[in-house]
Amino acid sequence: MALKKVAVIMGSDSDLPVVKKALLELKSYGVEYECRVMSAHRTPALACEFSANAKDKGFGVIICAAGMAAHLAGIVAAHTTLPVIGIPCSSKNFDGMDALLSTVQMPSGVPVATVAVDGAKNAALLAVQILAVSDQELSDKLAQNKIEMEKAVVEKDAKIQKEIAADALIQLSF
Amino acid sequence: MALKKVAVIMGSDSDLPVVKKALLELKSYGVEYECRVMSAHRTPALACEFSANAKDKGFGVIICAAGMAAHLAGIVAAHTTLPVIGIPCSSKNFDGMDALLSTVQMPSGVPVATVAVDGAKNAALLAVQILAVSDQELSDKLAQNKIEMEKAVVEKDAKIQKEIAADALIQLSF
Amino acid sequence: MALKKVAVIMGSDSDLPVVKKALLELKSYGVEYECRVMSAHRTPALACEFSANAKDKGFGVIICAAGMAAHLAGIVAAHTTLPVIGIPCSSKNFDGMDALLSTVQMPSGVPVATVAVDGAKNAALLAVQILAVSDQELSDKLAQNKIEMEKAVVEKDAKIQKEIAADALIQLSF
Amino acid sequence: MALKKVAVIMGSDSDLPVVKKALLELKSYGVEYECRVMSAHRTPALACEFSANAKDKGFGVIICAAGMAAHLAGIVAAHTTLPVIGIPCSSKNFDGMDALLSTVQMPSGVPVATVAVDGAKNAALLAVQILAVSDQELSDKLAQNKIEMEKAVVEKDAKIQKEIAADALIQLSF
Amino acid sequence: MALKKVAVIMGSDSDLPVVKKALLELKSYGVEYECRVMSAHRTPALACEFSANAKDKGFGVIICAAGMAAHLAGIVAAHTTLPVIGIPCSSKNFDGMDALLSTVQMPSGVPVATVAVDGAKNAALLAVQILAVSDQELSDKLAQNKIEMEKAVVEKDAKIQKEIAADALIQLSF
Amino acid sequence: MALKKVAVIMGSDSDLPVVKKALLELKSYGVEYECRVMSAHRTPALACEFSANAKDKGFGVIICAAGMAAHLAGIVAAHTTLPVIGIPCSSKNFDGMDALLSTVQMPSGVPVATVAVDGAKNAALLAVQILAVSDQELSDKLAQNKIEMEKAVVEKDAKIQKEIAADALIQLSF
Amino acid sequence: MALKKVAVIMGSDSDLPVVKKALLELKSYGVEYECRVMSAHRTPALACEFSANAKDKGFGVIICAAGMAAHLAGIVAAHTTLPVIGIPCSSKNFDGMDALLSTVQMPSGVPVATVAVDGAKNAALLAVQILAVSDQELSDKLAQNKIEMEKAVVEKDAKIQKEIAADALIQLSF
Amino acid sequence: MALKKVAVIMGSDSDLPVVKKALLELKSYGVEYECRVMSAHRTPALACEFSANAKDKGFGVIICAAGMAAHLAGIVAAHTTLPVIGIPCSSKNFDGMDALLSTVQMPSGVPVATVAVDGAKNAALLAVQILAVSDQELSDKLAQNKIEMEKAVVEKDAKIQKEIAADALIQLSF
Repeated sequence: MALKKVAVIMGSDSDLPVVKKALLELKSYGVEYECRVMSAHRTPALACEFSANAKDKGFGVIICAAGMAAHLAGIVAAHTTLPVIGIPCSSKNFDGMDALLSTVQMPSGVPVATVAVDGAKNAALLAVQILAVSDQELSDKLAQNKIEMEKAVVEKDAKIQKEIAADALIQLSF
Repeated sequence: MALKKVAVIMGSDSDLPVVKKALLELKSYGVEYECRVMSAHRTPALACEFSANAKDKGFGVIICAAGMAAHLAGIVAAHTTLPVIGIPCSSKNFDGMDALLSTVQMPSGVPVATVAVDGAKNAALLAVQILAVSDQELSDKLAQNKIEMEKAVVEKDAKIQKEIAADALIQLSF
Repeated sequence: MALKKVAVIMGSDSDLPVVKKALLELKSYGVEYECRVMSAHRTPALACEFSANAKDKGFGVIICAAGMAAHLAGIVAAHTTLPVIGIPCSSKNFDGMDALLSTVQMPSGVPVATVAVDGAKNAALLAVQILAVSDQELSDKLAQNKIEMEKAVVEKDAKIQKEIAADALIQLSF
Repeated sequence: MALKKVAVIMGSDSDLPVVKKALLELKSYGVEYECRVMSAHRTPALACEFSANAKDKGFGVIICAAGMAAHLAGIVAAHTTLPVIGIPCSSKNFDGMDALLSTVQMPSGVPVATVAVDGAKNAALLAVQILAVSDQELSDKLAQNKIEMEKAVVEKDAKIQKEIAADALIQLSF
Repeated sequence: MALKKVAVIMGSDSDLPVVKKALLELKSYGVEYECRVMSAHRTPALACEFSANAKDKGFGVIICAAGMAAHLAGIVAAHTTLPVIGIPCSSKNFDGMDALLSTVQMPSGVPVATVAVDGAKNAALLAVQILAVSDQELSDKLAQNKIEMEKAVVEKDAKIQKEIAADALIQLSF
Repeated sequence: MALKKVAVIMGSDSDLPVVKKALLELKSYGVEYECRVMSAHRTPALACEFSANAKDKGFGVIICAAGMAAHLAGIVAAHTTLPVIGIPCSSKNFDGMDALLSTVQMPSGVPVATVAVDGAKNAALLAVQILAVSDQELSDKLAQNKIEMEKAVVEKDAKIQKEIAADALIQLSF
Repeated sequence: MALKKVAVIMGSDSDLPVVKKALLELKSYGVEYECRVMSAHRTPALACEFSANAKDKGFGVIICAAGMAAHLAGIVAAHTTLPVIGIPCSSKNFDGMDALLSTVQMPSGVPVATVAVDGAKNAALLAVQILAVSDQELSDKLAQNKIEMEKAVVEKDAKIQKEIAADALIQLSF
Repeated sequence: MALKKVAVIMGSDSDLPVVKKALLELKSYGVEYECRVMSAHRTPALACEFSANAKDKGFGVIICAAGMAAHLAGIVAAHTTLPVIGIPCSSKNFDGMDALLSTVQMPSGVPVATVAVDGAKNAALLAVQILAVSDQELSDKLAQNKIEMEKAVVEKDAKIQKEIAADALIQLSF
């Protein structure tokens, strides 16, 4: 069975700087994706149609990024049985709290898997984890990534300890 | 020109206790209304279709009541050029702050006229005010109502002053 | 019947950068407007008098923009039966949450149609929608605008898809 | 110079249970007061007129209690140079945060002396403190009250220590 | 390939009333689950070990329910590459906002798929959706459920319209 | 009777940029003031002693400015029967919400008259209003100031209307 | 060296139901404590004096419980170099958020070790942990307690698994 | 008995600018510390192992700094009986409110002594206070520091009073 694709939809092209991190993450895992701009409020018909047909077109997960009264993920979830991941985007006010509550507080029957405000990389990673449930190769990549992530922290730990031992860190800071 | 009707849509029948106050208010002004249960997430196609056709069916305003990630008003507004009024409903958590932000923080191009949390009476009154912009009779009723509202406060003021003069109020409270 | 005018009142001239977006939107629809600076706290008599006479002077809707303890829309609504639209303006602290709650949480009997924080364009659009309830020409313009808004999103969607196909987007971002 | 009176205004008679505590406190200090129901939104003309004339009628301080979008204190302050004390009242939602922000976040030039949510007793006490600035007798009563308040705490402290010594407290709690 | 199991972990047995809804939902889909009490703070070793071995033991998704400083989902996610779903549980204070932020605001590299506060049914549904990505039978059940959910709303809509037509609804409410 | 002085205390000299506005306002009214740096946490004995003796030293009002866990106004109020005005200062995080709640939510018996976050000018104005309760000259100045404040708004109103009439405003903004 | 005592101070005797849990926890560890009612606002002199002398009287840690504008812990910390633990108590409004921010947001130089809202048991446990830094016996008790806490969770886990296996749990819940 | 060491752990090296202030404070007291980068989510095993062995390695207190869903302090506290101090770090959104709630709202049995958002200096000071409970020399240094802190405020007070007397301050500010 070929690996399903991931759809990444943003409500506005102004969300692109956030969304790019998701695209890069998907790319790093070799997961095929389609990236779209569709708005729950400005192009509702397109968003509904895309969501309703997503499964048949080979998508396995849909990621939606939107800010303010972020309805996109909810509307997409209303039209599909695929898992839908919501990225609440921060905008000019409220630090994304409006988008977070609009995305996560879904009523019973229509879940949206919400990640952190502007958490596009994690949205992609979650999509990969979902696809990996039935794909051992992808699962192995995830496990490998976890090990490398750990290594990176260990290296930073060593570097900082060395700097402190040399008193360089403290000196530098004043 | 016959007076336009008002559509009152609730996202769930659990919002009915709140929504009833809107129906009563509309009724008191003799404004014709239709009251529906339609969900942005559970019956999205119906909600979209209803909204898209509302103007042609003689509606002048659409009132939407929903709680939590309250997407209903936004989705309805996406499908009509009629003014859409949103009632954020409080639910088990957050006192309706989630519904308020989900309703009011709409992106440019698709406004929702938001009233107070659970403010169904005011939603109806706002709908009446909107219809009254081009209906002198309705406008007169609104003016009359304002006078009566004022009278009611004046009467309460007189009553409380009398009780305080008689020291009854203070006595009673302990 | 001639189209009613829209009054746009700001509580302080410091709200002008926000309010301008409303003026431009009204202008783009050919709706006549009057733009005023009047404060609920510094020129209460003027604000009350203006509101009380607005209907007689040919206004159909009043838009009020104010920040912090934003009382302007509420006070104006207290003096008129016209629909009053409130724009909560963000100020130095709280991202406009103070203005949002001060504007939207109106008591029963005196509604304010509240839009998003700093949502001046939507306030104007809502005013146009209200006037369009009884004006077919304006209604047609709104419908046309909706189509163009949709087209703009579709074009952005196409552009981003092309860039991604060319891998330009990803490249650029690092 | 005779002691000035205190006006206590509530926006709705539903605020009476809170406001009573202010009346009792004023009474305990022998300060003359007038208690009124006037609404910034339902009887704006009365509220404005009362405030504008309050100084001439012998009032020294005005206390205003209101909930939700609590505009009363602000509107009263707009019409007088007397110190205005605002009591933000909690209502069904938001624990009074809406009233607190609507009351305290006043723009430059029109202060409202805000006390705690539902803090009616402290509003009265603050009014007494204000009148006592130029009234030695009242000031002495305030000083006496402070001593008694201290004594009451000391007695509770002694009582609880005795109960703990007797292990009664711990026993009782299970 | 046999369908993967779902692990449902709660941080405290006091979360059981919430968690039960997830169990019932999983059961209704015929998805095998294991329900455990494990705490990030009181039994950290067990939680870590369980998570690290979950994939090998045939689990496909892990659901974690916790309140207050809800660390459970994050800690579990730190030890597995399986998708982890977090249910923020409301507790005595803050309506679950503490648990929501503790669950959703995960750092890059370790996502938690967060659902609404106390949204246990949706957590289960999301788990089913994830498993259904590679299971057509389960996917069909989900589609069927969506249709029934829609029907239920349509029925309620009809019922309420009938009651309003008979004026029964309005009468009853006063 | 000579006019009482106003004490202006800041918890940290970093609050000076905010506090200056209070000093200027007091100066413009010819009210004598003393400006001090005293901390509830770093110089508690000085703050307590100053507050306890303030009345005897001829002060009529004490203004306290502090940020974060702003205890200064509360502690000062604990040691005096003079009216104490609290200015919650915004600091690096939370936009001053921490200082606002720490200042305004005083327990029964010890009020603090709280103004807006960073509202130093209003704190001074409130102090002047308090002193003016028994000082006709000061009261007249306040009334005069109110008239000038009104004039300033009226002038701005005229200016903006002129610019809009000349279409200058709209042009300039793009 | 004899084990230091723990002082437990509450700002009001209404905090006693919360504070009792701290007393019981201290008792269970055999740690000597003194429990007092002292208010930062009503008995400031007593609170300051107690704090200033606490170290000399054999106390090692001071626990302070207070609600609303909770200044007690901060004021106590201002007068001692002993570690001060703050319990923010929830009161009628805001779920203790006012007390939490008033307690935790202390300025540099005067820390308060803050625990969860109403977290009296943890405050006591933290006090025991602090004393145990230099007391091996107490440290061993803490370690033992950790093991028993773990056991209790494991038992609940087993119980719930058994009930689920017997389908009793699900049955019971409907 | 040799003085115990303090461990300072940050969840990410991006927290270093905050954490440095803690290191400097510890250094100024001559307290030995170890500074580490360990993540509850990226290197959970290391964090657990470090915490479990910290007491045996001569640590007396552990300080943990983390942002967003700040689980580090909680996880560390789960593995040790040493007092654990949590520094909630502010990050891109929410001003550290997410980290504050994730750190302070710990369940019964596992306390975290939480300081202000980004309050690293106070975290270190609290650690010193804890060690000083059984170390007279350190306690004397703390007392000395308190006196110097007081002096610094008194000097600033004198400086500002002098500037005001010379009218320099007011002049400068415009």
